[in-house]
Amino acid sequence: MKDAILSSRMNHIDTSLIRKMFDLAGDLKNPINLSIGQPHFPAPRNIVDAAAKALTEGRTAYTQTQGIPQLREAMAAHFREKNGIATQADRVLISSGVSSLLQLLFMATIDPGDRVLLVSPAFLIYRGLVSFFRAEETLLPQTFAADDLKKIPKDRLKLIIYSSPSNPTGYIMKAEQIKALADLAEETGALLVSDEIYALFDYDKKFISAGSIYPETLTLFGFSKSYSMTGLRLSAATGPQTIMKAMTTLQQYTVVCAPSAVQWAGVEALKTDMTPYVDDYRKKRDLIRAGLQGVTEFYEPEGAFYLFAKVPGEDMAFCERAIKEKELLVVPGRIFTNETNWIRISYAAEESVLHRGIDALKELMK
Amino acid sequence: MKDAILSSRMNHIDTSLIRKMFDLAGDLKNPINLSIGQPHFPAPRNIVDAAAKALTEGRTAYTQTQGIPQLREAMAAHFREKNGIATQADRVLISSGVSSLLQLLFMATIDPGDRVLLVSPAFLIYRGLVSFFRAEETLLPQTFAADDLKKIPKDRLKLIIYSSPSNPTGYIMKAEQIKALADLAEETGALLVSDEIYALFDYDKKFISAGSIYPETLTLFGFSKSYSMTGLRLSAATGPQTIMKAMTTLQQYTVVCAPSAVQWAGVEALKTDMTPYVDDYRKKRDLIRAGLQGVTEFYEPEGAFYLFAKVPGEDMAFCERAIKEKELLVVPGRIFTNETNWIRISYAAEESVLHRGIDALKELMK
Repeated sequence: MKDAILSSRMNHIDTSLIRKMFDLAGDLKNPINLSIGQPHFPAPRNIVDAAAKALTEGRTAYTQTQGIPQLREAMAAHFREKNGIATQADRVLISSGVSSLLQLLFMATIDPGDRVLLVSPAFLIYRGLVSFFRAEETLLPQTFAADDLKKIPKDRLKLIIYSSPSNPTGYIMKAEQIKALADLAEETGALLVSDEIYALFDYDKKFISAGSIYPETLTLFGFSKSYSMTGLRLSAATGPQTIMKAMTTLQQYTVVCAPSAVQWAGVEALKTDMTPYVDDYRKKRDLIRAGLQGVTEFYEPEGAFYLFAKVPGEDMAFCERAIKEKELLVVPGRIFTNETNWIRISYAAEESVLHRGIDALKELMK
Repeated sequence: MKDAILSSRMNHIDTSLIRKMFDLAGDLKNPINLSIGQPHFPAPRNIVDAAAKALTEGRTAYTQTQGIPQLREAMAAHFREKNGIATQADRVLISSGVSSLLQLLFMATIDPGDRVLLVSPAFLIYRGLVSFFRAEETLLPQTFAADDLKKIPKDRLKLIIYSSPSNPTGYIMKAEQIKALADLAEETGALLVSDEIYALFDYDKKFISAGSIYPETLTLFGFSKSYSMTGLRLSAATGPQTIMKAMTTLQQYTVVCAPSAVQWAGVEALKTDMTPYVDDYRKKRDLIRAGLQGVTEFYEPEGAFYLFAKVPGEDMAFCERAIKEKELLVVPGRIFTNETNWIRISYAAEESVLHRGIDALKELMK
């Protein structure tokens, strides 16, 4: 085997930045870790017990490709009742994490040279997949107005993707913005993709599901963040029949099915009241927002559990200094945006850690 | 959204054949099901309990991309001791089923127009991925001799893939054949890929792991079939550093990690003595082989749990007739080979079902 064995797409992925940060952080004794992309609370006991029960009851064999009917029914009801999307179980695909759904989506739709519109700052996996599938990336600032869409390139536009609440900014997409993106989708024949993995973390009841405004939306739902089960790999999607069918076909050859026992845990998860967890994260959001007010500029954190803040100088240098001087871990913003003077702060952490983090950030930003 | 949204690769997948068979079979009351690609026994209790324990102990968060160190260590020891492969934990990637490993492999290596050599009859997902990644397929009959490799096209050859024991024939690759494929890999710079998901089902102790002969082999290991945990989605690979690194990078953007709790079950699985199960399947192999001897032509079933048999006339017509006249489900051979007069019979079934199946096949083949 020669190194030339690698496909040309391998030249379009670079993970050295994040690895460098991890290497730097490896030796820390008592780090202030505000870099984590998952809730700090354990998965609720009833959900975990449901997965364990499914296992001991022998739910260990392949399920249907599109997922067990019980979970598809429950997800369809969730999409209808919580999101206002007119859908049903036969238009729901259960998969193994939103990342798998994104991969199926790109495989189903993207040829090299096709265009993908991302609302920026954007989740790094969107950007990775765009690059990897040799698509053209167009970035649209999250504060865009309808008129801004007139100027963007529309040739070969296939996908319009955003996350709301946003990773990394916590921004929640406004109704008039969703309408503008839907109009663009209608005009160009592109698919509007709404990644709603953080929908639960909507602190001021601002969240609007795109599918309630534009029925042709592809809606992505994740169990990972809402129920703190990131390692269990469970997600769901609903959308136009053409795309659901293509993604299901591709799943046969790739994911095969979501983990069987975990699908049963998903049914239980959808019945679980997560209000106390959301209330806790709202307090944490208020705490970090108040702590950094006047210290630096940041996007208003409306949802998810991130605050995207401006730093003095370059993000990489800032993150290295944070590790060395304060044992503080945050994520350099450049993996989400083309600007290089932002960081992503996760407040999915114990309150004591948040206090230490705020103090450290204040000193680092002096 | 318009239907034109789909990528050109979607024109290169057709699953209508299998769907048609499923539709036909849907109404059967008491089918003789010899079509199943998974063991008929439940996952051993200790393995299931290990997964349940991991869940209740809170193993629900993301793991490292390449898998938990405990399972990588255990897999490395397994590869060394059972397969004779000189490897270690840092060259092991844990993933979510062999299908995910294959997908990562194709993404990591295949550009459109590259060539993939498959030993035929070949597992249908190999053929699906070749088509889907717009590669050129070369089929090499499993009974090939070293000299046959002189004649095949070698330009842009990237992958040489076979399963041993074979799905669908049960054939076990011979040492001189592995050597010949390794020589071809050396000559062309291609990667030799040995899919050993059925390695446990080696009834006459004939199995040779390619990595013990040719250290540059990429070896694929699955937990699904060995431990009857097809729905739990767990697999492992070891191979040259270049390819392991590329596949791990891609996993960050796609699979993310194998299901966390299931990885702990994998550690337990590798400690489990599966001899009684293998002995049972050897008896079933002997039973079906004896039952069909003289009835029709078939490949000598050395391993896995399949028998690949010739049928009178076309496979599709035969399979339809089997359903209608005998409520018998088998898989048409054309999804594994370019020939159209074979069927795959799975003997992963209760003995009473096998007896009914043999009787039905005898009458159908009259």
